[in-house]
Amino acid sequence: MLLEHINEPKDLKELSVEQLGQLAEEIREFLIEKLSATGGHLAPNLGVVELTLALHYLYDSPKDKFIFDVGHQSYVHKILTGRKEQFDTLRKYKGLCGFVKRSESAHDVWEAGHSSTSLSAAMGMALARDLKGENNKVVAVIGDGALTGGMALEALNHIGHEKSNVTVILNDNEMSIAPNVGALHHYLGKIRTDRHYQKAKDELQQLLNKVPAIGGKLAKTAERLKDSVKYLLVNGGILFEQFGFTYFGPVDGHDMNQLLDVMEQANNVTGPVLIHILTVKGKGYSPAEADSHKWHGISPYKIESGQVLKAVGPPMYTEVFSDALMELAAEDNRIVAVTPAMPGGSGLLKFAERFPGRMIDVGIAEQHAATMCAALAMEGMKPVYAVYSTFLQRAYDQVVHDICRQNLNVVFAIDRAGFVGPDGETHQGVYDIAYLRHIPNMVLMMPKDENELRQMMKTAMDYSDGPIAIRYPRINGLGVAMEPVMTPIPIGQWETVREGDSAAIIAIGPMVQVAEEAAELLKREGLNIRVVNARFVKPLDEEMLLQLADEGLNMLVLEEGCEQGGLGSAVLEFYSLRNKRDVSVRIKGVPDVYVEHGSIKEQRQEIGLTAEDTAAELKAMLPRVRKRVNGPA
Amino acid sequence: MLLEHINEPKDLKELSVEQLGQLAEEIREFLIEKLSATGGHLAPNLGVVELTLALHYLYDSPKDKFIFDVGHQSYVHKILTGRKEQFDTLRKYKGLCGFVKRSESAHDVWEAGHSSTSLSAAMGMALARDLKGENNKVVAVIGDGALTGGMALEALNHIGHEKSNVTVILNDNEMSIAPNVGALHHYLGKIRTDRHYQKAKDELQQLLNKVPAIGGKLAKTAERLKDSVKYLLVNGGILFEQFGFTYFGPVDGHDMNQLLDVMEQANNVTGPVLIHILTVKGKGYSPAEADSHKWHGISPYKIESGQVLKAVGPPMYTEVFSDALMELAAEDNRIVAVTPAMPGGSGLLKFAERFPGRMIDVGIAEQHAATMCAALAMEGMKPVYAVYSTFLQRAYDQVVHDICRQNLNVVFAIDRAGFVGPDGETHQGVYDIAYLRHIPNMVLMMPKDENELRQMMKTAMDYSDGPIAIRYPRINGLGVAMEPVMTPIPIGQWETVREGDSAAIIAIGPMVQVAEEAAELLKREGLNIRVVNARFVKPLDEEMLLQLADEGLNMLVLEEGCEQGGLGSAVLEFYSLRNKRDVSVRIKGVPDVYVEHGSIKEQRQEIGLTAEDTAAELKAMLPRVRKRVNGPA
Repeated sequence: MLLEHINEPKDLKELSVEQLGQLAEEIREFLIEKLSATGGHLAPNLGVVELTLALHYLYDSPKDKFIFDVGHQSYVHKILTGRKEQFDTLRKYKGLCGFVKRSESAHDVWEAGHSSTSLSAAMGMALARDLKGENNKVVAVIGDGALTGGMALEALNHIGHEKSNVTVILNDNEMSIAPNVGALHHYLGKIRTDRHYQKAKDELQQLLNKVPAIGGKLAKTAERLKDSVKYLLVNGGILFEQFGFTYFGPVDGHDMNQLLDVMEQANNVTGPVLIHILTVKGKGYSPAEADSHKWHGISPYKIESGQVLKAVGPPMYTEVFSDALMELAAEDNRIVAVTPAMPGGSGLLKFAERFPGRMIDVGIAEQHAATMCAALAMEGMKPVYAVYSTFLQRAYDQVVHDICRQNLNVVFAIDRAGFVGPDGETHQGVYDIAYLRHIPNMVLMMPKDENELRQMMKTAMDYSDGPIAIRYPRINGLGVAMEPVMTPIPIGQWETVREGDSAAIIAIGPMVQVAEEAAELLKREGLNIRVVNARFVKPLDEEMLLQLADEGLNMLVLEEGCEQGGLGSAVLEFYSLRNKRDVSVRIKGVPDVYVEHGSIKEQRQEIGLTAEDTAAELKAMLPRVRKRVNGPA
Repeated sequence: MLLEHINEPKDLKELSVEQLGQLAEEIREFLIEKLSATGGHLAPNLGVVELTLALHYLYDSPKDKFIFDVGHQSYVHKILTGRKEQFDTLRKYKGLCGFVKRSESAHDVWEAGHSSTSLSAAMGMALARDLKGENNKVVAVIGDGALTGGMALEALNHIGHEKSNVTVILNDNEMSIAPNVGALHHYLGKIRTDRHYQKAKDELQQLLNKVPAIGGKLAKTAERLKDSVKYLLVNGGILFEQFGFTYFGPVDGHDMNQLLDVMEQANNVTGPVLIHILTVKGKGYSPAEADSHKWHGISPYKIESGQVLKAVGPPMYTEVFSDALMELAAEDNRIVAVTPAMPGGSGLLKFAERFPGRMIDVGIAEQHAATMCAALAMEGMKPVYAVYSTFLQRAYDQVVHDICRQNLNVVFAIDRAGFVGPDGETHQGVYDIAYLRHIPNMVLMMPKDENELRQMMKTAMDYSDGPIAIRYPRINGLGVAMEPVMTPIPIGQWETVREGDSAAIIAIGPMVQVAEEAAELLKREGLNIRVVNARFVKPLDEEMLLQLADEGLNMLVLEEGCEQGGLGSAVLEFYSLRNKRDVSVRIKGVPDVYVEHGSIKEQRQEIGLTAEDTAAELKAMLPRVRKRVNGPA
C-alpha cells in the first residue's frame, strides 16, 4: 500500500509515474469504501484522482494555489493533504467538510459550494500575486457544467483581457450534475468527438505545406494565407483562443503520463492557459460509471451491488411538489417548468418525460433562468422556476428588476429552504425570506406539511396578480393524509392550528410541528399555548395579527431562517407601522452566523430550534403568565 | 419635415429608403434639441437612429417584439411610436420614462434598466411563442458592453442550444458606458479591423476553388478539407457560430441600405441569428462623437458649444469618496479599486491615472468583480469594490457565499444608495440595507455628510476583521467643513447630533439632516426631539439603544431605504431579541412599492421622507408628550 505513506504532498514527489498510477487505484478503493458508509460526492471524486495527483506532483501547494470549482471534487486533495484518517466523519457534524475548508488545512486556499466562482477567484489571486511581485502559480479546476455559469464566463472574458498567468483546467466529463445543456457543451462535444474537426487543422497544414510547389500567382496567395489562417487554426480550442487563452487538449484525464506531459508543457506558457481534460465521472466503480448522475452525490450504499441504502419514510417535499406539478400541468398547458441544471434534485425528471418540451433545463444559469421566466410570464405562460433557496441567491437582482418590478406571474418553487444538512454552510437555505420579503409585489408562502404544499401549488397556479413563491424544506413530509383535490388557500390567510390563551407561537413550515410539540411540553406546566401557522410570510395575515395584539398575547415567532429581516421582523414591522404598542413579540430563528454541516436535526439543536428550547424560551419570556398560573388558581 | 407625419410605425412603411435617411437626420435634430433641455442618454440614441428605423420599417411591432437591452437607447423607438410630443417631460416626475415602459405604449414589451437581460427575455418570448404555436419575430438589441454580462452569456449559450428563432442585433459601438474591457471586446475589434482576418476566408475559399486542378492524391485531401474547414470559416463571427448562431456582419449601422439588406437576409434564416452592426455613439453631434463616454448620459447643455449646464454646489459624495480613496491609496499600496464598467460614475478615473494597475475595470460583470475582490482580500490586498447600490444586487450571492462566508476584508463603496432621481425605479438604491444586513460578518455604514464619509473611508481601511460597506447617496454633500485628517470611527458607534427628551429620531445618511429639520419644526411646538445619527446599520449601537429604551423615549427610525428589513427592522429585532418590552419604535422609510422617476426631492416628497412629514408623524405618535406640553405648563 502506497497510500498509507502519503501524508502530505511532498510524499508524492518521490514516486514514479507508475507508482502514481498504483496510488490512483488505491485512492479509488479508499473512496469507494469510505463513502459507502458516509455517502458523499463519489462520482466527481473518482473522476479527478489522476488530475489531483498530477496537481500535487507538479506544483507546490500551498504556495501554488489550487482552486476547486464548487469544491465537492476535493476529496482526493484532502486525502493527499493529511486528512485521510478523517474520512469516517465526512459531511458529519463537526467532521470533515464535504467541500474545501480553510480551517481544515493550509492547502485549502479557497472555499466554495456554489459553482462557477473558481475563475474569478483565480483572477483575483493572480492579480494580487502580480501586484505583490510574487511568482506562485494559480490553478483553477472547473467542470464543463460550471463553465456555463455567467460569472465563470465573465471571468474567462476578463482573464483573457488581462493576460494574467492563470491555469484553468477544464474537467470535461460531459455531464455536470445533470446532463449538460448549452451551446458551449456542444462545442466541447465537437472537439471531443468530431474527427472532421480534429483533422481539419492537420490537413490544412498539410495542404499549405504542399501549396508553394504549385508556384505562380497562387504561391503568393498561399503565403499570405498561411499567416491569415494561422490563428484560425491554432488548435482545437478556437473558442478559448478567442477568449485569449492558450489551449491544450483534449487530454485523457486518466492517463497519468499524458496528463503530466501536457501540464508540464502548459506550465511553460506565459499568459492564461486552458487545459482541456476528458474524464469519466465515477471512473473505476462500475455502478457510478453507469449512472454518474445518480452517483454525483450519493447516500451510503453497498459496495458490491451498488445498492443505495435509503431510509424509508413519508415522501420528501420535493416529490410532493413534483407530483402536484404534474397534476396541475396536465390540466393547464400554460405551465412550464424551468430549472438551472437541477432537474433531478428538483424532482422534474418525471415531468420532463411526461410533458416533452415543457421542462426547460437552462444549465447552471440561475440569472438567465429567472429572466427567461419573466418573459414566459409576460407572454401568458405559467413558468414554475424550480430552484434551491441557496441558488436563487444568484438571481436576486433578476427577481427584483425583471420579475417583481414588472409584476409578472412567475411561480417560484424554492426547494431546500431552511437547513440542508450535510452540504452545510454554503448551501443553507436560511436567507430567502430575508432577501425576498422586501421586494414589492412578491407573495411568499411556506407549508406546514406536505399536504399543505399541494394546496399552495394550487394557490400559486390560480394566482394571477404577480410573482408568487413557495419555499419548502429538504426533508420528508410528516406523513399526513393527502387531500386528493387541491384547494387554493386565500392569499395572506394564516391558520390557528392549536388554541390557547397563555401565549402564541407564530411558526412557519416545519417549525409549526416544533411549536406544537413545545406547546405540548408547556401544557404539562399549565400553559395553554396557541400555535399559528404563518403560512404566508408575505402578505401577512393582518387581521389575525391585530387580533393577537388585541388579546394581549405574548408572541414568539419561530422560523428556520435568519433572524435579521425574517418573518419575525415582518411581524415587528407590521405592529410598528400600525403604531401598535404594548405588543410583545420575540423572534426565534437562525442567529447571525453561518451554520456548518451535520444533520438537519443537529443543526437545529445547535441553534436551539427544538421543542425543548422553544418551550424554555417561551417560559422565560412569560413571567406574568407564569405568575398567573401559579397564582390565584 | 417628415417627422411631423410619423405618429406610429405604419407611417414609416410608406417611405422610401431615401426618405428614411432624411427622417434619420430629422430625428437626430429632434433629439439634440430636446435633450439639451432635459438631459438624458443622448449618445446611445444618436447611435441607433438608423437601426430603430430599420426595425420599425421591416418588422411589425408590437406583434413582433423588440427588446432593448438596458432600454436607455429606446428614445428613437419612443419617437416612432407616438410619444414625440412628450419629450419635454423626459425623465421628469410623472413624465416620459428614460427607459422602455410598458405603461406608456403597447410597443414597449419589455422593461429594463440593468444591462444584459435582453437575451434571456428574447429566449423566454421565443419559447412562449413556440409553445403557443405563434409565429412572431423576437428581436433583441444589445450593446457590445452588455454582451459581456454573465447573464447575457448564459442566455447566448442557451439560445444556441435550443436553436430558437431569435434575432440578436449586436450594436457594437466599441464602447459601452466606459471603454469596453474583456476578451470578447478584443475579438469584436478583430472582426472590425483586422484586414488579415477579413481576408482569410475569401482567400481560403479562392485557394480551395483552385486546388482540385492540382489533381492526384492532393485532390482528395482538398475535397475533405473543404468540408472540414467550412465551419471554421463560415464567416467572421466564428465565436458566435460556435455558440450556435448564424452570423451576419459586420454592417455599417448608419448605412440604411446595407442595414435593411442584411436584416432582410437574416430574416429568412431559421434558428438564432446574430447581426453585428457597427455604430458610432453620438453620431451626428460632434461634441458627443468626440467624447461619447461623457455624452452617454448627459445633463442639459448648450447645443452650439456642447457646454454642459451644471448646478454649482458642494462636491458630490462620489467625488469625496474618490478623493479620500486616493489619499488613502497613496499611503497603502494594498488598496486596489474594482469597478464593473463604471469607472466614471464611481469616480475612479483620476484614481486610475494616479495609480496605474490598481484600478481594475472588469466590464459589466458584477458577480465576477465581487468574487475577484474576495480573492484579492484573501491574498492580503485591500480591494475596494466601487459599485452602485442597484447593481450590487447582481452580486448578492457572491457577497453571501464568497465574501462574507469566508469573512474577507473587502471594502464596499456603495454609491447611489437611496433614491437616484431621473433613472427611476430600475435604479433606486433602496434595497441594499435589506439585502446586506442579514448577511453574517457584514459591517454596514452610511455617513450623515461628506466629511463623515471621509472618516468612514478611514474606518473601512483600518478595519481588518471582515467585509465592511459604506453606502452613500447620489447627491451633493451638505457643504460642511472637511477635516483634513481622517479619523476612524469606532465600529458600531452612533452619535447623538441633537439633544432632546420628548422623543428620538434615529436617522441615517441624508435623513439625519431631515430629522434635524423636523426637530427644528417641532421645537416651535415645544417638543425637544433628540436626533441620533445611526451611522452603523450593522452592528447597531446596542448601548445607545438600551439607553434610549431605559429613558422610555418614543423613537422614530428614519431611512431612505425599504421599510421591510431595513434599519427600523434592525432596531425592532434588537429590542425583541433582548426581550425589551414597552419600547415604542416606529419605522419611516420607503414603503413596499417601486418609486418612479423624478427628482430625488420629488421622490422623497411622494413618500413623505421630508421634514414636514416626519414632524407630523412624530407628533401623531406622541399623544402623551403632546399632552404634557399642553398640560401643566
